[in-house]
Amino acid sequence: MLRLKPLANNRIMQSDVFEATYGGAEANVAVSLALLGNDVAYLSKLPANLLGETALSTLRKYGVDTTKILRGGNRLGIYFLEKGASVRSTNVVYDRAGSAFAEAKQTEFHWEGLLKEIDYFYFSGITPAISDELEQVVTAACVYCQAHNIPVVCDMNYRGKMWSPEKAQGVMSKLMNYVTICIANDEDFEATLGIKAFDGDMSRGIDQITSFKEGMLAVTKKYPNCKVVASVLRNIRSVEESEWMGLLLKDGKFYESARYQMHVMEGVAAGDAFGAGLMHSLLHKAQAQEWIDFAIAASVLKLTITGDLNLVQESDIRSVMKKGGGASLNR
Amino acid sequence: MLRLKPLANNRIMQSDVFEATYGGAEANVAVSLALLGNDVAYLSKLPANLLGETALSTLRKYGVDTTKILRGGNRLGIYFLEKGASVRSTNVVYDRAGSAFAEAKQTEFHWEGLLKEIDYFYFSGITPAISDELEQVVTAACVYCQAHNIPVVCDMNYRGKMWSPEKAQGVMSKLMNYVTICIANDEDFEATLGIKAFDGDMSRGIDQITSFKEGMLAVTKKYPNCKVVASVLRNIRSVEESEWMGLLLKDGKFYESARYQMHVMEGVAAGDAFGAGLMHSLLHKAQAQEWIDFAIAASVLKLTITGDLNLVQESDIRSVMKKGGGASLNR
Amino acid sequence: MLRLKPLANNRIMQSDVFEATYGGAEANVAVSLALLGNDVAYLSKLPANLLGETALSTLRKYGVDTTKILRGGNRLGIYFLEKGASVRSTNVVYDRAGSAFAEAKQTEFHWEGLLKEIDYFYFSGITPAISDELEQVVTAACVYCQAHNIPVVCDMNYRGKMWSPEKAQGVMSKLMNYVTICIANDEDFEATLGIKAFDGDMSRGIDQITSFKEGMLAVTKKYPNCKVVASVLRNIRSVEESEWMGLLLKDGKFYESARYQMHVMEGVAAGDAFGAGLMHSLLHKAQAQEWIDFAIAASVLKLTITGDLNLVQESDIRSVMKKGGGASLNR
Amino acid sequence: MLRLKPLANNRIMQSDVFEATYGGAEANVAVSLALLGNDVAYLSKLPANLLGETALSTLRKYGVDTTKILRGGNRLGIYFLEKGASVRSTNVVYDRAGSAFAEAKQTEFHWEGLLKEIDYFYFSGITPAISDELEQVVTAACVYCQAHNIPVVCDMNYRGKMWSPEKAQGVMSKLMNYVTICIANDEDFEATLGIKAFDGDMSRGIDQITSFKEGMLAVTKKYPNCKVVASVLRNIRSVEESEWMGLLLKDGKFYESARYQMHVMEGVAAGDAFGAGLMHSLLHKAQAQEWIDFAIAASVLKLTITGDLNLVQESDIRSVMKKGGGASLNR
Amino acid sequence: MLRLKPLANNRIMQSDVFEATYGGAEANVAVSLALLGNDVAYLSKLPANLLGETALSTLRKYGVDTTKILRGGNRLGIYFLEKGASVRSTNVVYDRAGSAFAEAKQTEFHWEGLLKEIDYFYFSGITPAISDELEQVVTAACVYCQAHNIPVVCDMNYRGKMWSPEKAQGVMSKLMNYVTICIANDEDFEATLGIKAFDGDMSRGIDQITSFKEGMLAVTKKYPNCKVVASVLRNIRSVEESEWMGLLLKDGKFYESARYQMHVMEGVAAGDAFGAGLMHSLLHKAQAQEWIDFAIAASVLKLTITGDLNLVQESDIRSVMKKGGGASLNR
Amino acid sequence: MLRLKPLANNRIMQSDVFEATYGGAEANVAVSLALLGNDVAYLSKLPANLLGETALSTLRKYGVDTTKILRGGNRLGIYFLEKGASVRSTNVVYDRAGSAFAEAKQTEFHWEGLLKEIDYFYFSGITPAISDELEQVVTAACVYCQAHNIPVVCDMNYRGKMWSPEKAQGVMSKLMNYVTICIANDEDFEATLGIKAFDGDMSRGIDQITSFKEGMLAVTKKYPNCKVVASVLRNIRSVEESEWMGLLLKDGKFYESARYQMHVMEGVAAGDAFGAGLMHSLLHKAQAQEWIDFAIAASVLKLTITGDLNLVQESDIRSVMKKGGGASLNR
Repeated sequence: MLRLKPLANNRIMQSDVFEATYGGAEANVAVSLALLGNDVAYLSKLPANLLGETALSTLRKYGVDTTKILRGGNRLGIYFLEKGASVRSTNVVYDRAGSAFAEAKQTEFHWEGLLKEIDYFYFSGITPAISDELEQVVTAACVYCQAHNIPVVCDMNYRGKMWSPEKAQGVMSKLMNYVTICIANDEDFEATLGIKAFDGDMSRGIDQITSFKEGMLAVTKKYPNCKVVASVLRNIRSVEESEWMGLLLKDGKFYESARYQMHVMEGVAAGDAFGAGLMHSLLHKAQAQEWIDFAIAASVLKLTITGDLNLVQESDIRSVMKKGGGASLNR
Repeated sequence: MLRLKPLANNRIMQSDVFEATYGGAEANVAVSLALLGNDVAYLSKLPANLLGETALSTLRKYGVDTTKILRGGNRLGIYFLEKGASVRSTNVVYDRAGSAFAEAKQTEFHWEGLLKEIDYFYFSGITPAISDELEQVVTAACVYCQAHNIPVVCDMNYRGKMWSPEKAQGVMSKLMNYVTICIANDEDFEATLGIKAFDGDMSRGIDQITSFKEGMLAVTKKYPNCKVVASVLRNIRSVEESEWMGLLLKDGKFYESARYQMHVMEGVAAGDAFGAGLMHSLLHKAQAQEWIDFAIAASVLKLTITGDLNLVQESDIRSVMKKGGGASLNR
Repeated sequence: MLRLKPLANNRIMQSDVFEATYGGAEANVAVSLALLGNDVAYLSKLPANLLGETALSTLRKYGVDTTKILRGGNRLGIYFLEKGASVRSTNVVYDRAGSAFAEAKQTEFHWEGLLKEIDYFYFSGITPAISDELEQVVTAACVYCQAHNIPVVCDMNYRGKMWSPEKAQGVMSKLMNYVTICIANDEDFEATLGIKAFDGDMSRGIDQITSFKEGMLAVTKKYPNCKVVASVLRNIRSVEESEWMGLLLKDGKFYESARYQMHVMEGVAAGDAFGAGLMHSLLHKAQAQEWIDFAIAASVLKLTITGDLNLVQESDIRSVMKKGGGASLNR
Repeated sequence: MLRLKPLANNRIMQSDVFEATYGGAEANVAVSLALLGNDVAYLSKLPANLLGETALSTLRKYGVDTTKILRGGNRLGIYFLEKGASVRSTNVVYDRAGSAFAEAKQTEFHWEGLLKEIDYFYFSGITPAISDELEQVVTAACVYCQAHNIPVVCDMNYRGKMWSPEKAQGVMSKLMNYVTICIANDEDFEATLGIKAFDGDMSRGIDQITSFKEGMLAVTKKYPNCKVVASVLRNIRSVEESEWMGLLLKDGKFYESARYQMHVMEGVAAGDAFGAGLMHSLLHKAQAQEWIDFAIAASVLKLTITGDLNLVQESDIRSVMKKGGGASLNR
Repeated sequence: MLRLKPLANNRIMQSDVFEATYGGAEANVAVSLALLGNDVAYLSKLPANLLGETALSTLRKYGVDTTKILRGGNRLGIYFLEKGASVRSTNVVYDRAGSAFAEAKQTEFHWEGLLKEIDYFYFSGITPAISDELEQVVTAACVYCQAHNIPVVCDMNYRGKMWSPEKAQGVMSKLMNYVTICIANDEDFEATLGIKAFDGDMSRGIDQITSFKEGMLAVTKKYPNCKVVASVLRNIRSVEESEWMGLLLKDGKFYESARYQMHVMEGVAAGDAFGAGLMHSLLHKAQAQEWIDFAIAASVLKLTITGDLNLVQESDIRSVMKKGGGASLNR
Repeated sequence: MLRLKPLANNRIMQSDVFEATYGGAEANVAVSLALLGNDVAYLSKLPANLLGETALSTLRKYGVDTTKILRGGNRLGIYFLEKGASVRSTNVVYDRAGSAFAEAKQTEFHWEGLLKEIDYFYFSGITPAISDELEQVVTAACVYCQAHNIPVVCDMNYRGKMWSPEKAQGVMSKLMNYVTICIANDEDFEATLGIKAFDGDMSRGIDQITSFKEGMLAVTKKYPNCKVVASVLRNIRSVEESEWMGLLLKDGKFYESARYQMHVMEGVAAGDAFGAGLMHSLLHKAQAQEWIDFAIAASVLKLTITGDLNLVQESDIRSVMKKGGGASLNR
């Protein structure tokens, strides 16, 4: 998607310029993985115009394999982002109706070729939320992966402006049967899986760690194929100030990360950074504790970066994992 | 519409910022008329979101009555403008599918109330090109105007990316029966009325003044209700360099403006500025020669202004009409 | 006024660009009221040049009735704003000498026509501070309002760079006899009314709530026409960090708002936002508690907006009034 | 003065940012001379606030001696510059009323100390146009110079928005008795000296070279102290396109420079660049032909520079003086 | 290289911001070829820091294979570009001393692996000018190519700030023995090959077409391996205005392109665009006339693009090749 | 040096524009002292190109005597600054290899002339870290100062990217014999003097005040010529949040400043601001308590200013020294 954002904390009504960047849940994950040195291909459908070309080039810039992306359709999805401040919430205006991906058809996706020789398959709950057709597309991919022992990673990523909890639960509860590693944050548990884990008060997510753990256990109980559940827990006090931690369940055991007191530059796409950090750990680290430590460090680092993409390298994440990362000046 | 433009002459592929302005054919005419001191109301349908609100506020800023604008629908139409340079053409990428106005219904327009006590009704050929529904809407307005002796001004404004000549001719030839003052430029004659006036070579439009005159006469012959036909003739040598003049037919007599050698800052919406200049003249001047002189001066002045809107006042236009407008420094 | 501000937190000495916005105490209140859906007209005098035109258009953009504004005089008042940071105070350099409004004459204001059919009259203490002539103008308006039972709202708005406490008290103590609703913050009590309510330490305004209450009672005792007194109380720890609350006295009873911990983007014009929020409540709500709750939420929201104008709608204010407004992400 | 200019060719009405630079006729000359390696001091009065400080620092940056500048008064003069384009004239909105310099008093200028050991004294006709007091100030300086054999250079610099030809002639004809080197362009001859040299048509100034020569001779005849008269002659076809040449009269003989076909980036302060180029030549070159060649090259170079100041060095001017300066690419 | 450029036509002395883009002769050619749909790999050495990473990513963004690029060394070469205007020449300040590529060693380049399976090898005369070591590197590549029948394309690209004609001729006359297709412009003939073809007057390059032809014939006579010589001929009247044409010699026959009257946005890297256009033609077209027509159209299109990279696609070039490319407005 | 910084908190990889400012340790001190009203000359070597010229002009702008600066050499040193945020550290990429100053020779510095009639000599440990030649240069200056009773102020300023502790100690322990006033912060004690004072944990520098005091005493014991030692102590919690205080040892007695809770805009060059504040105090105040109070206030003020230079005046520092400096709004 093209993301258009007024400068700084300006409102749309006072803006005669928009910052243009490109991103989207799965794209963000792909770029992070590429910047961390992994081979990663991204799949979507982009219009065959200058905007589609630019979106594709942006992914290629950061090292993502873009050769599998479909081209065609009418337009590139857009979203407008009004960054909030203090007590004023950040606000997203979606303008994705009629996008090339939203109107893509099942028949355009040939999974045998697309998924050949891949090690992991990642999708987020946003994709099946876009259209029934895309739900079918994702299901076909999951079926293929299960048949070929390719682990499936899914970030539930519930979006209230895209579908209702009822619709989401109907779809996601079916897809969860194929998911090996599940990422669910905040309201995702209830909205997409009907599992109560969080009371909706974003200012005290971490304080509810016990109910989160219960929710995570419920997930693994309900979906036996799901071996790992990971979450970001947050106490968000204002647009700028919040506390973050990661929580991971594996083989019935919980792993908790350190807690980070964050001054937030930008609150979007931190979940995607978490997902990418988790996948990178899965691929390269032995210990579940390392998985969640690395993933949450990647995630909070995204809070310091402007734009959907988490433009950091492994050394940046390692630096954050050391106590007092922000306190030093590298010179 | 929201217009998004890379800075200066940049291409979309190298832009991480877009200039955001608001405009559209009829909106541009309305703003010009308001800035010239006329009472003018604008009618369209804008989404009930922050983008629609900003578009509306922009018109209100310049003095247009926005109280008749319908609100609702999904999105605001967008267009991306890549300003060309020298031999590189200016390029427009439309992103208007699914806009609130494109999906507006006939039943939303109550012309008796909307057109009460107005002196002139203006529309451009872009509106009926958007949808069949809008063609019906425009037709209903024209019928009302004819019944109430309200003169109708129409700028043919053919857009090859919106409809074919066949479709355009089918629609516009019917609407022309209601039009009192017709503005047709360049390819408009043939594409919308099937009248041959111009061979398509933009570098020598003025040189074809004779065939333009024949075309204009053919219009008045074919559409007896049409009392005035006006055109902008151009020799365009490059994106920056061109020569402009106006031509007007009234009561079988032609009126030619002076010719302007122009260094062009921006080539869009000069036709709307011409239409507004013409209407302003119609309302305030006695002589047809003054009409075309004022209209073309308004039009070329737009070539010096960035954005869809011709942000000039009557004194600016008068200054251009004097020989050597650009030669002086007002201090 | 035209406000010129270096980018971000830059100092004037390092700026080769200024952000240009338009505002001023009463203008800010008018825009807020218009954005909240009220019919509001603004009265001032603006020069008949491009800067005056732009100031007027800005108000019109946001829906203010600008048809009563006088035109003429020499120049538009300017102020330069250096936004501070942390321990560095925000700094204002006034450049308003000789402005059209400062040189306006009594005889230009015909209150019978100007105030006909209005429901409320609002002014701030800045206006009589500008010139003796404007003091007479305001007095004449107040006399008219009293005679016609139009409630008068006054924000005392003391400015130490404009007049001395002695001068201010001499003028404002007379005008207060006409005021129905009085807004007084911080030093206003003593500087404009000679009533001791606050010891001048901005870091502990809220802590002095008791003396503020005594001051408010003293106001209603001294000026029996004054039925309501409202204040913003603040503990300001630095340019960025502060705590805000509202306090209102009506019929001998005090109403206190919630307290807001704020991260401040910009500290100017929050008082005007408070005044507008209060007036909007007066017009639409029954309960005094609602008045102060809405007014303070409008005020703190202004702290998140750049420019003099509080570009928010009622829904934005309602969102802040809910606990944890800044914690959510609307998507 | 502070100069505020919308970006690119934007109009004030569409600008939410102004480029801020500092300049003014005599200041521009001083900076040019300093950049060319001369010792030069500038005299004016600047307010003791951040804007005055910044104006002073800007001159110091480029090497001008600013130690003689008076400090005090109310405000720094401002002018707004709307850069025109093609047929739209560049427009200046002055906002200098009440500036520190405009309100300076004779008694503040102690010429014995200020002018000690200087080689040349330069002033422009703008200074006596500002106030009667400044006329007296300039006269006192001229008297001192005459008594001490310091040559006086004066650029007549008529500004129609500042004074009438009658007023200007009354003042300048007296001051001319002290002037050794006179620069007069275009309308200056008639407006300030009552000598007819130019018919006012800026598009054909060069074509009137004969009457310019007659005017220059008339100047030397009328003011025998005046040994040199220099002029810039121009054929200005539009804001961007013009032809420039220099003309100089010395000892009854005329010297003509080459003609330059210019594409103009910015049309202001080229006269000041000419004056500085001429003075630099006077100080360092033997031949009058060199004087006018160097001065006109300095002047046309200013047309390629943004801002009031001619930020070029001697090598840049020499490069222009060679045929085809703009044709090469230095790499 | 990192290119740092003041905004618009500003000078370095007045710039507090630089536009940062990445490019360099061979990199520019590679990007053009990739955008035209060819498989192309770029070889250089970039430092292993954030600047090297960004330079590499930029090439990857546009589709260039960057996997062969060496990493290491101290710094990325920089050049500062002051865009001229009218009579003021564009000025380049090189800051490439100590760059990673300048300090690269022969032993780092293993041509057997690097050149395997390539169809063409391209280099410019800038590379051997950088260091003796790089001269050896280029020679080794040429030897490999000759041994493996890989055609070598060389743009002579003489840079007077990098080496003397004597040094250049000593090196290039040896390398020319391996070159199959030679691009030589303007001064290149004499400075690098000692062949007189052009008198150095950039304002009349096209006028000297006869001596250019003689020079080209001399090249093929002196270097029998060289089958094609191509040149851009220019009449440059100012920074903005020039006339361009292409000339090609093949099998003893000359092919001349159309002439383009250009309004130039930016004058750098047009030669690289020409080289890329020529190579694209060689790969895809049968006729030499098509080669030169396509190459010159690609080259003049670069004059309309900001930054070193010619961000155009084949359709853009085709559009220019039609008469009057800049006259149309695509909408 | 030229400092290039992406906008806001952007990373180099996402920047197509860099903010360009000029500075460097000693230059920053010089500008501060000049802005505080002192006569100060700066000595360095700058290239004779446009970048060197601009660096020099910047210093001159703020009142520094630049006449002693040497000109010549190849290039101006550059550093790239990526401003961090929250847990992401600020990152500096040096690009100073081959700079004019780094390659300066001893024989270029004639200290008798350069140091004549100066009151204080200031240098930082960065200078001898640049090259052995510069170490000799500094030593020569120190010898001269000792012989002429000119006090020497040295900020140890250890930079781990420039030299090792071993190298630093070898050099600085010799230079310290000439130093009268020593500024050492954080790791400086150990890295440059081998004295243990701080454990390296930037989040708790203030908490280690006792060991700092021991370190300072050790300095005066080891270097009897050193009469004053001053330090900035910090608890840095993140890029934005930290606590600062100053500590000074004189005649065996410690002086502690107040502690400042800071919201940091920019963390570089605060040490230089401290050094300048200290020197200004030394020159104008009697009491050591005033010295440290003023120095730390100058230092924390720098944290609110963008760019290397502390653009504040004495009144700004005085305002911070009052309790609650950031709480007021000057209007």
